[in-house]
Amino acid sequence: MPVTPLKNDIFLRALKREPVPYTPTWLMRQAGRYLPEYNATRARAGSFMGLAQHPAYAAEVTLQPLERFKLDAAILFSDILTVPDAMGLGLSFAQGEGPRFARPLRTEQEVNKLEVPDLSKLQYVFDAVSLIRTELDGRVPLIGFAGSPFTVACYMVEGQGSTDYRLIKSMLYARPELLHRILEINAQTTALYLNAQIEAGAQAVMLFDSWGGVLADGLFQQFSLHYTRQVVQQLTREREGRSVPVIVFTKGGGQWLEQIAACGADAVGLDWTVDLAAARRRVSDAVAFQGNLDPIALFGGEPAIRSEVRRVLDAFGAVGSGGHVFNLGHGISQFTPPEAVGVLVDEVRLYSPQFHDGNK
Amino acid sequence: MPVTPLKNDIFLRALKREPVPYTPTWLMRQAGRYLPEYNATRARAGSFMGLAQHPAYAAEVTLQPLERFKLDAAILFSDILTVPDAMGLGLSFAQGEGPRFARPLRTEQEVNKLEVPDLSKLQYVFDAVSLIRTELDGRVPLIGFAGSPFTVACYMVEGQGSTDYRLIKSMLYARPELLHRILEINAQTTALYLNAQIEAGAQAVMLFDSWGGVLADGLFQQFSLHYTRQVVQQLTREREGRSVPVIVFTKGGGQWLEQIAACGADAVGLDWTVDLAAARRRVSDAVAFQGNLDPIALFGGEPAIRSEVRRVLDAFGAVGSGGHVFNLGHGISQFTPPEAVGVLVDEVRLYSPQFHDGNK
Repeated sequence: MPVTPLKNDIFLRALKREPVPYTPTWLMRQAGRYLPEYNATRARAGSFMGLAQHPAYAAEVTLQPLERFKLDAAILFSDILTVPDAMGLGLSFAQGEGPRFARPLRTEQEVNKLEVPDLSKLQYVFDAVSLIRTELDGRVPLIGFAGSPFTVACYMVEGQGSTDYRLIKSMLYARPELLHRILEINAQTTALYLNAQIEAGAQAVMLFDSWGGVLADGLFQQFSLHYTRQVVQQLTREREGRSVPVIVFTKGGGQWLEQIAACGADAVGLDWTVDLAAARRRVSDAVAFQGNLDPIALFGGEPAIRSEVRRVLDAFGAVGSGGHVFNLGHGISQFTPPEAVGVLVDEVRLYSPQFHDGNK
Repeated sequence: MPVTPLKNDIFLRALKREPVPYTPTWLMRQAGRYLPEYNATRARAGSFMGLAQHPAYAAEVTLQPLERFKLDAAILFSDILTVPDAMGLGLSFAQGEGPRFARPLRTEQEVNKLEVPDLSKLQYVFDAVSLIRTELDGRVPLIGFAGSPFTVACYMVEGQGSTDYRLIKSMLYARPELLHRILEINAQTTALYLNAQIEAGAQAVMLFDSWGGVLADGLFQQFSLHYTRQVVQQLTREREGRSVPVIVFTKGGGQWLEQIAACGADAVGLDWTVDLAAARRRVSDAVAFQGNLDPIALFGGEPAIRSEVRRVLDAFGAVGSGGHVFNLGHGISQFTPPEAVGVLVDEVRLYSPQFHDGNK
């Protein structure tokens, strides 16, 4: 693959806490159901997995939000559950419902049979990454991603989404060694999976620890952060002659910020419950931060969106030796009016340059 | 009502950070669906509201867990949504589903019509409090409770439970003055409501801010904590010649602990994501803490329950000038095996005396 020089690398530079002219922006789940063009492609693909498993479709929807909005990064269209699907758990998405596994892990026997899968089963993901890189043609960097070992394990044990995580926590409390075995295998697989995405062309990677925040203090560190750190430490950190930054995001992890920031990642994603000024002080700008607008602020109408965007940028303040990537504190809601995203991006571009003194 | 002296007041003393011989224990939702005797009474009452609205049934289920377990407090059996029901919003509980309001608040007109209700509509609650006090006969103190103004407003605007709080947050961002009006009325009503419970015999009161934790930093303080503080400041703090302690619990509020602890309450409830040792340091023992075992730890079997109970007690450490009430970090799950509660209570009684040097 010929390497096209990046025309806009400010996302990558902000993650490395290098000077940039304005605060770069992308949104979690930016290629998604709030966009009519996404829904049209999904209808043609027939299903969510039809989209994710066909590189041409995955590339098409990955690029859609970039056509509408001045975003500074693209993120691979895929799902964190491709990994356990490759492990043989049988993923499906029922219409209007969340993901389900046909063969969740509940018994010792089921856990003992779990193995690091043949990564060729995920070739469709790596093909999508390569194709997207080609189609992006250097416009903005491409982010690869995976779920954290614990978050993926939640789905593997529960078999679907949960409100109380009773099955996985019961395993954690009653048979911790079984959960540790799952997490070890998830960590090994996830490191291989992300490195293959980097090899295929991902220019930054993000680990989504969506459910680490449901664990008790002390157990979060043992059952989630420990394995996230294992993954981060095995990642390829340089490729195509430049650094491949790593972002770790634990939803609800604000209380553990110092510990998360020490896991080896370049940047930490923060949800909207965290004060960015306090977060910077707590870690002395040792990492960049990504976030942290409440996704529901996008339902407030234009004046409220602009004012809430400014509140986030004001909280971070003068960027100095820190790094800030503007984002939501969680994935964008499927009910979001698309024009609200335009307002958000516009306000970040208008209001953020004052916080950056290192203009290109 | 003749006042029977309390035979066991260690719960009240722990909340005031006075010396006690062991760590007192009660569990949020201790009178509930995990108990077969509760389900039998509920079947006789016909429905959840049938239970809550009939003092004899409410008293019966309030006392049931005390017959099984050596708990140090009883909590009124009721629901935080009795208040908006009295405001005319039309509460119902569909079988197997959560609460629903027939007339949620969505428009300016609907919000403007909202008023502090005639508290006589809640007489059934005060009658239940009096009857429970009589039937308790001084065994342990009785806790009264209410939802926080924001948490109750969530249900009033959403009309039912929610996963993203899109309707109330849309109001917050787009029409903050409407939400402030609801919250003002909720705060006034809640103060009157809790004071009437105290008048009827409640010996401590608790405010449940179950959903404050879904708000963004900065907005939590304006839209939730501000109104919780208003309620706390209006409460009757002495009755029957002794202090009536106030507990405030914001689920997911660990990051705002210093601010919550400054709201005027005697004690702060903590969920399981908070390290009790760090929490004590952060507020210099200025308040007592209540919590914070993960309710799902009760599914781990006896050795795990004992070990997790000890982990909570160890984290709090030597009680000294602090105060600790053992509890779960959230309501007990309806699927909990009742015998697990017996193990929990037993372990607190066995293991906690070493942390108390002020024996009776």
